[in-house]
Amino acid sequence: MARKASKSNVVALASKKPAGGAGKDTGSGVPRQDDTRVMALDLPPGTLSAAMQAYFQKCQEKLGFVPNVLLAYAFDNAKLEAFAAFYNDLMLAPSGLSKLEREMIAVAVSSQNRCYYCLTAHGAAVRVYSGDPALGETMVMNYRAAKLTRKQRAMLDFAVKMTNESWAIEEEDREGLRRVGFTDRDIWDIAAVAGFFNMSNRVASATDMRPNAVYHGQGR
Amino acid sequence: MARKASKSNVVALASKKPAGGAGKDTGSGVPRQDDTRVMALDLPPGTLSAAMQAYFQKCQEKLGFVPNVLLAYAFDNAKLEAFAAFYNDLMLAPSGLSKLEREMIAVAVSSQNRCYYCLTAHGAAVRVYSGDPALGETMVMNYRAAKLTRKQRAMLDFAVKMTNESWAIEEEDREGLRRVGFTDRDIWDIAAVAGFFNMSNRVASATDMRPNAVYHGQGR
Amino acid sequence: MARKASKSNVVALASKKPAGGAGKDTGSGVPRQDDTRVMALDLPPGTLSAAMQAYFQKCQEKLGFVPNVLLAYAFDNAKLEAFAAFYNDLMLAPSGLSKLEREMIAVAVSSQNRCYYCLTAHGAAVRVYSGDPALGETMVMNYRAAKLTRKQRAMLDFAVKMTNESWAIEEEDREGLRRVGFTDRDIWDIAAVAGFFNMSNRVASATDMRPNAVYHGQGR
Amino acid sequence: MARKASKSNVVALASKKPAGGAGKDTGSGVPRQDDTRVMALDLPPGTLSAAMQAYFQKCQEKLGFVPNVLLAYAFDNAKLEAFAAFYNDLMLAPSGLSKLEREMIAVAVSSQNRCYYCLTAHGAAVRVYSGDPALGETMVMNYRAAKLTRKQRAMLDFAVKMTNESWAIEEEDREGLRRVGFTDRDIWDIAAVAGFFNMSNRVASATDMRPNAVYHGQGR
Amino acid sequence: MARKASKSNVVALASKKPAGGAGKDTGSGVPRQDDTRVMALDLPPGTLSAAMQAYFQKCQEKLGFVPNVLLAYAFDNAKLEAFAAFYNDLMLAPSGLSKLEREMIAVAVSSQNRCYYCLTAHGAAVRVYSGDPALGETMVMNYRAAKLTRKQRAMLDFAVKMTNESWAIEEEDREGLRRVGFTDRDIWDIAAVAGFFNMSNRVASATDMRPNAVYHGQGR
Amino acid sequence: MARKASKSNVVALASKKPAGGAGKDTGSGVPRQDDTRVMALDLPPGTLSAAMQAYFQKCQEKLGFVPNVLLAYAFDNAKLEAFAAFYNDLMLAPSGLSKLEREMIAVAVSSQNRCYYCLTAHGAAVRVYSGDPALGETMVMNYRAAKLTRKQRAMLDFAVKMTNESWAIEEEDREGLRRVGFTDRDIWDIAAVAGFFNMSNRVASATDMRPNAVYHGQGR
Repeated sequence: MARKASKSNVVALASKKPAGGAGKDTGSGVPRQDDTRVMALDLPPGTLSAAMQAYFQKCQEKLGFVPNVLLAYAFDNAKLEAFAAFYNDLMLAPSGLSKLEREMIAVAVSSQNRCYYCLTAHGAAVRVYSGDPALGETMVMNYRAAKLTRKQRAMLDFAVKMTNESWAIEEEDREGLRRVGFTDRDIWDIAAVAGFFNMSNRVASATDMRPNAVYHGQGR
Repeated sequence: MARKASKSNVVALASKKPAGGAGKDTGSGVPRQDDTRVMALDLPPGTLSAAMQAYFQKCQEKLGFVPNVLLAYAFDNAKLEAFAAFYNDLMLAPSGLSKLEREMIAVAVSSQNRCYYCLTAHGAAVRVYSGDPALGETMVMNYRAAKLTRKQRAMLDFAVKMTNESWAIEEEDREGLRRVGFTDRDIWDIAAVAGFFNMSNRVASATDMRPNAVYHGQGR
Repeated sequence: MARKASKSNVVALASKKPAGGAGKDTGSGVPRQDDTRVMALDLPPGTLSAAMQAYFQKCQEKLGFVPNVLLAYAFDNAKLEAFAAFYNDLMLAPSGLSKLEREMIAVAVSSQNRCYYCLTAHGAAVRVYSGDPALGETMVMNYRAAKLTRKQRAMLDFAVKMTNESWAIEEEDREGLRRVGFTDRDIWDIAAVAGFFNMSNRVASATDMRPNAVYHGQGR
Repeated sequence: MARKASKSNVVALASKKPAGGAGKDTGSGVPRQDDTRVMALDLPPGTLSAAMQAYFQKCQEKLGFVPNVLLAYAFDNAKLEAFAAFYNDLMLAPSGLSKLEREMIAVAVSSQNRCYYCLTAHGAAVRVYSGDPALGETMVMNYRAAKLTRKQRAMLDFAVKMTNESWAIEEEDREGLRRVGFTDRDIWDIAAVAGFFNMSNRVASATDMRPNAVYHGQGR
Repeated sequence: MARKASKSNVVALASKKPAGGAGKDTGSGVPRQDDTRVMALDLPPGTLSAAMQAYFQKCQEKLGFVPNVLLAYAFDNAKLEAFAAFYNDLMLAPSGLSKLEREMIAVAVSSQNRCYYCLTAHGAAVRVYSGDPALGETMVMNYRAAKLTRKQRAMLDFAVKMTNESWAIEEEDREGLRRVGFTDRDIWDIAAVAGFFNMSNRVASATDMRPNAVYHGQGR
Repeated sequence: MARKASKSNVVALASKKPAGGAGKDTGSGVPRQDDTRVMALDLPPGTLSAAMQAYFQKCQEKLGFVPNVLLAYAFDNAKLEAFAAFYNDLMLAPSGLSKLEREMIAVAVSSQNRCYYCLTAHGAAVRVYSGDPALGETMVMNYRAAKLTRKQRAMLDFAVKMTNESWAIEEEDREGLRRVGFTDRDIWDIAAVAGFFNMSNRVASATDMRPNAVYHGQGR
């Protein structure tokens, strides 16, 4: 596992720490929330494979930035590749769930776990995919307050039960999903997305991962 | 308690229900979150006193709208007057806490209670008062992830402990506030604001009160 | 907001502290629970308006004492007036709920929040209004153990759900109240009383407000 | 295990059910809480041994009544004898804890478990043993609001931690008790009493055991 | 209550402490879990009655060891006798519940309370009585994952509800047991066993009682 | 994403369901816990890549079986490959944490989430890696009861806090790990393993994944 300094400009960002302490004061007496550092662990950037360098380049071109979660994993190329492959299959591969629905699960789960990183990044995704800022807000605040189809509501209820008391899930819960029209494959995908964010929320909170500031303004 | 129909145009809004069911579809398969109704209880508007009519007029002029929470209380003029007096003293009267700090308490408490109405309305207030959208977002998502002064953090920790386990508050908790510089009068004000939103969150959730849509875009 | 010392004899009580430490020993090895101080915050009494002086006078005449919660608020006349107006409308104004029922909600909510002040003062009110000491006790201990009509039980279940997981209240919960005979206006009143005690419990716990000793013996 | 009908007048009470449904109305719209039945299980009284008949006789003479918990166990003489022996050793045998302190543990634990039977019966015991009605009330409502010696508070904190998260008790917790002056034998007794009421609360709630009405008025 | 040193060889074990600190290292970097001490309280062994000496002798002959819980109580003969009588009636006396079913309740309850002693000792009992190691494991891990008859599942659901929220048990819960075929006497027995382990779990955790090592291998 | 039937013998097992209902009776009245099916979702096996066929072959040779979690993912080769790569890097790649320590985290986390699959499979791994059956048992039952080094205990406390209240993790928690000797890279690995099992536990519970029966007997 290579740990010497990378030449990559992109990854070099990963170890940047804010120059001026906890943030500039805004006159309001509250420090500005600028989130320029990636996480609270000090891990020297690893040497990225050509594939990962290209992936970061693509992020930069398409999004205008590399998501901080990727910069966080960039201390170790093998871990970054495994994470990216796992994540991209989960959120982007063909599925009975739309990309918006997968993002809705991501945010409803992250709200239960109060994960600042994921709520910011995936809240933005819900706003952008749906074109409805209020939907993204509601997923962050309390998905039960959202106007949803019966099927979407069942999907989120299952994801939230998985989050809060997975030990109590039983056949009746799966039957409930089938009754509103989900296939067994859809149920797998709901479980896989809800499970993933229960991991990702915790890694982000454990390392104090900070979202790219640009997310706050997306899709408003 | 007068309950006949009001002549007031403003209050008349209070009983408007969405014409087309739960919301228009946006093409994403998720209904649009338009929030045009005030709450889930069907209470005919009351006759407002001259004072309350003037108050609503002033809201309209200064904010461009009457906050839905006021429209919700407008079914009974006495209740509206009592609520408005109580609220305005709490959030606007002189205090050792700035208006921004009182709004930060409001949002941190509302986040514990996952109150869609209060998170939307007071999240906007934090963004506007601080000029820092990320601060408002962080208060909604997890106040522990915010960059705060030690004094602000103690203030919010106390408010959140009041919210989640008020029965466990003891002299040591008050001493903690005094140690970071709060006076006994400040402690009262922290307690009063945190207490109030524990009421208001619950009334809003119990009646499914919906925030004015305009809040979502404020202070972005 | 006037803060200089009041001339009022009644309010002067507000800053009285027990002379002899935490309480006299009774021979049992446990200090006597005498509750002579009003709260743990040291706030100099404010100058009361004529209306508030008259109100305290009326309390003294009708009850034989001024409830400590009023003495606690008496450091600031504006806050006292707002609190008294709000409280009196809530608990005494015409409503589809009897005064006893509103007190039952107060106690069931306060039991969830384990608020010593409110359980003592409003537990007494339930005993007095109902003429049934065991009813007051049961509301304090576990409202589910009480013998109630189906309608009263639904009312308290709603108030307790509001207290413990207000974020999970949905249309089905309101429908449940309608089914047992409550109007939408009644539902507002249930929500308003349950909400209020979620505020009041927390302010009392945050300030260690102590009930007047006389409550313990009332209605036995 | 004998299960034929007992001749004992006392035990015969055990199967009495209220004649008139859930209780008489008091005019307040709330049924009267009269608690004349012993529990919700219909178990025919067993044949009591001479020892148990004498024990019931003694209860009648000294207390004026047989505690309903004994009547509940009276369906099976062996179970009644085992329970009575266990209970009497626990609460009455010589110990570093006074009888009042053991009753305080009983009530603090029962408050966590919201056990109507035990709060009523043992709340009365605290009032009677201490001669301080407010102490009994406070144990029922929130023991943290009571004025206690540092040693008593540590004792109750341990009992409540045992009740709410026994899995998290560690050597440090026992050390805390030793530091305020408890011996290892005292710690056993605290644990034994707290443990016992965690059993008794649950058996009472599971069977809807009802306290003798006389307890409500004792020690007021 | 005699507290001078016993002559009994068996009871003498009760005060044995591990010679070499917290346990020998196994080369894995984790201390070996050998559990040779009985509990964390240092209580000198009491003088056992002839009956209790015979009981210990019988344990030694039939089981090959005296269960540590008995050694823990052996500091006081009266407490040991009361405990043994209570326990033996509960788990061994005639009942509508088989001994295996009573042990299943013991383990399901102990799993909620995460009691190391009881999960080890009674997990072994379930494996031995059922002849199915996986059943014992499942009771320890999550009884909901076990294959059970509908009646057994209802029994364990009731026991677990008693454990986690006994205050919420109502007639409907008892009716549920009756509907699957339990008599009122069976319900008492379920409640008694579930209640008992809520006591025993807590006494074991409060005193850090350690199971005899032999249990780990039984019934595998 | 290929979903036609695989030729692989191994994967063919994935859709096997028990022939005879929920399990054979053992004479004890409790169905035998045989766990022959893989999960509760009916997903036709996918076509495995050569790499995955070789991987399954290797499992069969080295372990004597293919772990059911792999068979569960085998409905989709891409998902299986992503999962296997992610998992193998996490649990087997070089790290400051030993393989045993990673398995201890796995089990302590799975115990919080009461995941039958992971407790069974990884409980076995702890027994095998440590050579100490009681250590594996204790991780399943309550890691706080285990004899651990101070560093191991801090590691598990962090993993369990991540599991139960990840939103409350702050710099102080990371500092606690650094103080007992963990590097920032170690902290990442603790977080990554604890996060992963919070995912895997939930996917297993959501799909009722069943462990291979062979695990129960390993390392006893």
